[in-house]
Amino acid sequence: MKSSEQIFIEFYEKERKALDIKFKKVFKEKKPASLYEPSAYIIENGGKRLRPILVLLSCMAAGGDKNKAVNAAIAVEILHNFTLVHDDIMDNAPKRRGLPTLHNKYDLSTAILAGDNLIAFAYQYLLKDCLDNDKQVIATFTKGIVEICEGQSLDKVFEVKKDVTIEEYMLMIKKKTAALIEICCSIGAQIAKGEKKDIANLSKFGLYLGLAFQIQDDLLDIFGNEKEFGKTVGGDLIEGKKTYLFIKAFEKAKGKDKQKLESVIKNKGVAKEDVPSYKELYIKLGVIDEANKEIVKYTSKALNSIKSLKNSEAIELLNSLANSLIKRNK
Amino acid sequence: MKSSEQIFIEFYEKERKALDIKFKKVFKEKKPASLYEPSAYIIENGGKRLRPILVLLSCMAAGGDKNKAVNAAIAVEILHNFTLVHDDIMDNAPKRRGLPTLHNKYDLSTAILAGDNLIAFAYQYLLKDCLDNDKQVIATFTKGIVEICEGQSLDKVFEVKKDVTIEEYMLMIKKKTAALIEICCSIGAQIAKGEKKDIANLSKFGLYLGLAFQIQDDLLDIFGNEKEFGKTVGGDLIEGKKTYLFIKAFEKAKGKDKQKLESVIKNKGVAKEDVPSYKELYIKLGVIDEANKEIVKYTSKALNSIKSLKNSEAIELLNSLANSLIKRNK
Repeated sequence: MKSSEQIFIEFYEKERKALDIKFKKVFKEKKPASLYEPSAYIIENGGKRLRPILVLLSCMAAGGDKNKAVNAAIAVEILHNFTLVHDDIMDNAPKRRGLPTLHNKYDLSTAILAGDNLIAFAYQYLLKDCLDNDKQVIATFTKGIVEICEGQSLDKVFEVKKDVTIEEYMLMIKKKTAALIEICCSIGAQIAKGEKKDIANLSKFGLYLGLAFQIQDDLLDIFGNEKEFGKTVGGDLIEGKKTYLFIKAFEKAKGKDKQKLESVIKNKGVAKEDVPSYKELYIKLGVIDEANKEIVKYTSKALNSIKSLKNSEAIELLNSLANSLIKRNK
Repeated sequence: MKSSEQIFIEFYEKERKALDIKFKKVFKEKKPASLYEPSAYIIENGGKRLRPILVLLSCMAAGGDKNKAVNAAIAVEILHNFTLVHDDIMDNAPKRRGLPTLHNKYDLSTAILAGDNLIAFAYQYLLKDCLDNDKQVIATFTKGIVEICEGQSLDKVFEVKKDVTIEEYMLMIKKKTAALIEICCSIGAQIAKGEKKDIANLSKFGLYLGLAFQIQDDLLDIFGNEKEFGKTVGGDLIEGKKTYLFIKAFEKAKGKDKQKLESVIKNKGVAKEDVPSYKELYIKLGVIDEANKEIVKYTSKALNSIKSLKNSEAIELLNSLANSLIKRNK
């Protein structure tokens, strides 16, 4: 008999491949090439496809046919890619998924414009899967975009703000990262025409999963392997981002350690060669353990939210997915 | 008795003032301030409010109650402002409506993000006025955004393309400028639940009006008064834009005149102090007259499209509006 992990991996790989084929078609032969070649570049260059698969699984979990949510799944991935393109500009990120970022490969105007157009394309795909509950689905989606922008704005403000608390950080990642994962689950359940409480529970699952996901991302930024992670290791420190690790470390540090962290704020980031010394400091201050504990806590909260759903196959798959995210290295 | 021009001016001013009050509330007290202060800055800083008023007038013209289209009117103005914010980044524009552009007053990240969020806010307002024909209205709106992005992409490509034809230019302005004016008219008529042919005729009106509007804008860029126009005079030439005037002049010029125009392409623009000499060249080559003829031609086409509509009051107002645009100086 197959283990539930095996079943999950097979399900995920099958859906991911099917989605990848669809992503190759989204911008195919569209004109002008000046807009659609870069769009294809970003959407076809891999990624985990976590968000669209969450739409499909949430649709199943709420009692729906996942095939009816495929366009909505494509929509959330397009939207996610919009956030990557524009965030990479704002973060001066040179690489994404091991390849040059869009503004780096093309130019600033192309990246701004391709990102804008991705938003509209996301709506076009979403509209394909809306039935008689369009308005609710589109409103959820739209509210998500507003939250993402608010979260990104807070993230930028925090880069130059001295005293960011963990509460402020949690609000920021709730908006910047968790909101999109939440809408994936909510929209999947809405398209399934799930019961109100099931939609609410799946939304909560997405929210908690998103919080765990972002804290894990903060860890991977500094502890990930550059090749697997595909981004510059320590990019958050280089950009002076107030991550979970930084804020916790800043709370706990004293004396010279505190000064070392204060210099990050003062200099709005660190040089690439200084990243390893901050990694050591984080370990010494015990903030890695704390981050791991938070990841486990929010993952448990996520899983508790979907216990009562009826579709046991989908619950099992969502369980495996949540656990696989804890172990991820990219 | 009041002239139809007086009636139009009074109608326009009344609606513009009512809209301005509403625009002041859109982002009021919203947080984070880092996102919403810049949003308020751009939406509150005037502008003609042409597009929202077209939504209201089209709603009336198709037999609807304009009060039911107010949120849709707000939506198109928010969307319009998104295009201004992002285009100004791409065009390196220092001023807009006589004030610093958003990226100039704040920074690049803020301008990108505020623009993104404006798109989502536009959808939020649009959703407020959608009844049981949401899907059609939202699809029209979304298709418009795609066209705007495609048009802007063509505009950027044309900056470095040597041989842009008038046909290519017309396709570009149809997408970049006319598409939004077209959706204003289409959405207004759709919200009115107008007859299919009335929606189509009003859309056509918007399209032709948009073409006339953009050619007029090309003229104003170089013949406008900086104070009234609010933008840097000659900005299109400085940025090396392929405007109607430039393309026509390039077609007609010979010898030294041709070389002068070729140098704009070669140098990707001209210095500010050289703008007056190009103005003279345009006059000498007769392209100003040609542009004015095109403006009159498309305005007539626009007005012919709405002759058969039933609401004579709205037709009269749309007539006056179209004629006022020909005479505008900003």
